[in-house]
Amino acid sequence: MLQEDRKAQGAYLDYAAATPMDPEVLSAELPYLTELFENPSAPYARARAVRADYEAARGTLARLIGAKPDNVTMTAGATEANNLAFAAVDGKVLVDAIEHESVMACAEARDHAIVPVRADGLLDPAQLRASLSPDVELVSIELANGEIGAIQPIRACAQLVREERERRLREGQARPIWLHVDASQAAGYLSVNVASLGADLLTLSAAKIYGPKQVGLLWAADGVRLRPLVRGGGQENGVRSGTENVAGTVGFARALELAQSRRSSEAKRLQKLRDGMQRTLKREFPWAVVSGPRKSAHRLPNLLHISFPGVEARRLVILLEREGVSVGTGSACAASKMRVSRVLDAIGMPRWASEGSIRITLGHPTTEAEVEYATAAIVRAVRGELNRTGISEVELRERGAEAVFGGTNAATAVAHGEVEN
Amino acid sequence: MLQEDRKAQGAYLDYAAATPMDPEVLSAELPYLTELFENPSAPYARARAVRADYEAARGTLARLIGAKPDNVTMTAGATEANNLAFAAVDGKVLVDAIEHESVMACAEARDHAIVPVRADGLLDPAQLRASLSPDVELVSIELANGEIGAIQPIRACAQLVREERERRLREGQARPIWLHVDASQAAGYLSVNVASLGADLLTLSAAKIYGPKQVGLLWAADGVRLRPLVRGGGQENGVRSGTENVAGTVGFARALELAQSRRSSEAKRLQKLRDGMQRTLKREFPWAVVSGPRKSAHRLPNLLHISFPGVEARRLVILLEREGVSVGTGSACAASKMRVSRVLDAIGMPRWASEGSIRITLGHPTTEAEVEYATAAIVRAVRGELNRTGISEVELRERGAEAVFGGTNAATAVAHGEVEN
Repeated sequence: MLQEDRKAQGAYLDYAAATPMDPEVLSAELPYLTELFENPSAPYARARAVRADYEAARGTLARLIGAKPDNVTMTAGATEANNLAFAAVDGKVLVDAIEHESVMACAEARDHAIVPVRADGLLDPAQLRASLSPDVELVSIELANGEIGAIQPIRACAQLVREERERRLREGQARPIWLHVDASQAAGYLSVNVASLGADLLTLSAAKIYGPKQVGLLWAADGVRLRPLVRGGGQENGVRSGTENVAGTVGFARALELAQSRRSSEAKRLQKLRDGMQRTLKREFPWAVVSGPRKSAHRLPNLLHISFPGVEARRLVILLEREGVSVGTGSACAASKMRVSRVLDAIGMPRWASEGSIRITLGHPTTEAEVEYATAAIVRAVRGELNRTGISEVELRERGAEAVFGGTNAATAVAHGEVEN
Repeated sequence: MLQEDRKAQGAYLDYAAATPMDPEVLSAELPYLTELFENPSAPYARARAVRADYEAARGTLARLIGAKPDNVTMTAGATEANNLAFAAVDGKVLVDAIEHESVMACAEARDHAIVPVRADGLLDPAQLRASLSPDVELVSIELANGEIGAIQPIRACAQLVREERERRLREGQARPIWLHVDASQAAGYLSVNVASLGADLLTLSAAKIYGPKQVGLLWAADGVRLRPLVRGGGQENGVRSGTENVAGTVGFARALELAQSRRSSEAKRLQKLRDGMQRTLKREFPWAVVSGPRKSAHRLPNLLHISFPGVEARRLVILLEREGVSVGTGSACAASKMRVSRVLDAIGMPRWASEGSIRITLGHPTTEAEVEYATAAIVRAVRGELNRTGISEVELRERGAEAVFGGTNAATAVAHGEVEN
């Protein structure tokens, strides 16, 4: 009976893929979805009031990231914001090896270089420095990766970009260089103050912080000249035409306010739940591989990426959904194509391990009971799969050891399976 | 007392700028703004169900325009859809002189030619034929103009484009040529069946038909190869990356269903109200100039564009808003910049007339009482302005006559002030 209650309850553990709108966000938006529907560019008083609310929301977003409203361009999501950042330069771009698909796709469409990351997913600033050739115009680094949770050393990267910019100025080279930071996955847990990050361009997504979907923003420092991807009526200072998304922007502002007010307490609460789950799973399956940085400070507090070598992640997803538990298998974009994760390739994980990887991300609605229920369900599912396939855990332990200690990448030994806690 | 009641009631008469969401549309969307929030690309059952609903909505949209679902790309609005259409070709583009700003801006950013329109706003197919040089790859014509309501002879244009395509095929020329039709302003009143229009590309906007804002689509025929403006996860067949807008697409499908079911009755009802308003205003101010095609069949049934030479439209807007009446002064995008309308320049209207122009557009919620109230308010406002400025109506009549019969464009005589009814 208790089991059935829990089953009915289930657990959604894929907040990195999508977050439900906070009821407060929906309440903030509803007036603009109903009576306050006027076009903010229309000339009469009701429309001007709608525009004022829109600009106030932009002002709130700007304030929350420590920026001026004029430097904030609203977009239809993080993907568009990332594309807009790349459109600001003509020259070579640098990205690290585990960027989001939208950043990778923008880079691959032009002259680019990829900076490798360590086996724990972290970018080594020395590697970035070595790649900062005089023809680079944009460096794009995600503040926190949504698949293995690596929080990049953005301030150190920003310092390097600044030094390169100063060198060019000193030497009379006109070529600009900017640091773009996609903070979509980070905004719920880390500061996204543009000054303290040292970024020149910043992407945020409302959809990852319990705000509306299809709403994002690109902040750009004063010196950066954005160029439109979409032309027309000249909205957003001519950078992004199309009728303004009033409801979405009002909702985004409320969502970022809530995220900021909850950031520190939620980071602590979810890290505790995540760590407990990780401990249980590692106790049950010592051969399982946890990916991402060892230190808590370098890994998203709500994320657990765990690989069960010898088990198929796709089967785990199906077994878990039968118990009402939703987990991811990587970025949702890639997952739908049933491809093996590019991120796991980049950190040197062997295919037979990456094919058994699930990504668990906790969120604001997540409760301790849900985590306990989901943990038990995962243990049952993995155990069931082991029984079904007849693979012995002794063998897996040996394979796991081989993967961790005999992998192609020496750093693998440090990272895989040796995460803190 | 009655006057006060009416004042409290007011009348929104700017449906070409923005439409309120139909309550049925909002109801259709709400589940996806709340419990059905999963990422449609995620692998578990709940997310797959969300994807199924999304694809069903795309299927509905496709069916309503007589197309295959695979040929429909969802966008963040008509502006993006228009930009996407232009991105499909590299060569020269042809547009008529009264296209929407998003089409004009796309054309002006590349090799283009502008086909003039007559003084009534209609494109003369003979003019189009004369402009169809062998280097043209895209012709873009709005099905109905949102400012003066001209319904273009799309089928005749499509025939010309087809003939040019066949000529090229016969002569072994590989260069493609496509007809793009922006039907955003038309979809509430005219058929948007792609086959009967003869279009190769079609833009629709949800925001103009009581659907959600920031939602549009681009349909493209089989032979057209769309190219992405926004890269990333590869959604929408790789043409438009970014998490799919499930709620918006479901809402759009419902809105287009409603529009189609109401199209014929609403067209009749609103035309009757519009014609009544036009008759009253012309009776009160015979020197006022009504723009747009003479024949009802060639003008949007819900639109009245009327110019009061000698009166400032901006002042009229303010006087009317005090009575709760909202009217437009052209496309909202241009209006916010307080520019004189490019469309009115293109039809040869002299500045002193275009500066006194208001655009009235009726919509589904419009009642006869509202139209009566608004008409009386407009009469009072214009009369008040005439008294304030001391311009005599005799003088205006003469000026109007001069504008109409002595204008720079011979066709002006046919069009201005001689609209049917």
